[in-house]
Amino acid sequence: MDGNLFADLPASPEATERMETLLTHPGLRIERIVSTGQASPPGFWYEQADAEWVLLASGEALLRFEDESEARRLRAGDWLHIAPRRRHRVEWTAENAPTVWLAVHWTPGTKD
Amino acid sequence: MDGNLFADLPASPEATERMETLLTHPGLRIERIVSTGQASPPGFWYEQADAEWVLLASGEALLRFEDESEARRLRAGDWLHIAPRRRHRVEWTAENAPTVWLAVHWTPGTKD
Repeated sequence: MDGNLFADLPASPEATERMETLLTHPGLRIERIVSTGQASPPGFWYEQADAEWVLLASGEALLRFEDESEARRLRAGDWLHIAPRRRHRVEWTAENAPTVWLAVHWTPGTKD
Repeated sequence: MDGNLFADLPASPEATERMETLLTHPGLRIERIVSTGQASPPGFWYEQADAEWVLLASGEALLRFEDESEARRLRAGDWLHIAPRRRHRVEWTAENAPTVWLAVHWTPGTKD
């Protein structure tokens, strides 16, 4: 299995984010997410049972943790660990170019 | 834990590759490797018990699998899965700019 993280990017904004699984094994999933201006719905928070490590590979985004007062501005190369159940949302993604995320999800039971 | 994959890159070639662990949990390790012209020693093959998913985030490299007749040329965004024990080596990395790798290693026992 191989590919390129920047292949087949949308040329213009789309209605929804694209999510593609690049690799999956029991307890581990690596995916590419391509945002073109989407944000989490108002008042919505992700609260995932799995742990996540995420890299913003290109583009720009504002990621907000509920336990922080301000959103973090993420630019190309920025990465962070999101602990299980830590509530967070995407406040904004760039509209002028695709924002490519690489997300590694793993099940805490097998690894925390 | 957070950071930027392209932070603190060497301004000029160094004697050895830089390896930094970005995240570690039982059975999972995410690391950044920065190459500045290094290659695997002649005749050396990596043969890892762990599975690996690797992304070339910037720069350029030639990666050779023993079971393939030619090396693969990797450019920014290229990713591939390296199965446990699949013999491979780095034939070459760019000398004019740092090559940044993101490597996700996991223990097959817990996830294959």
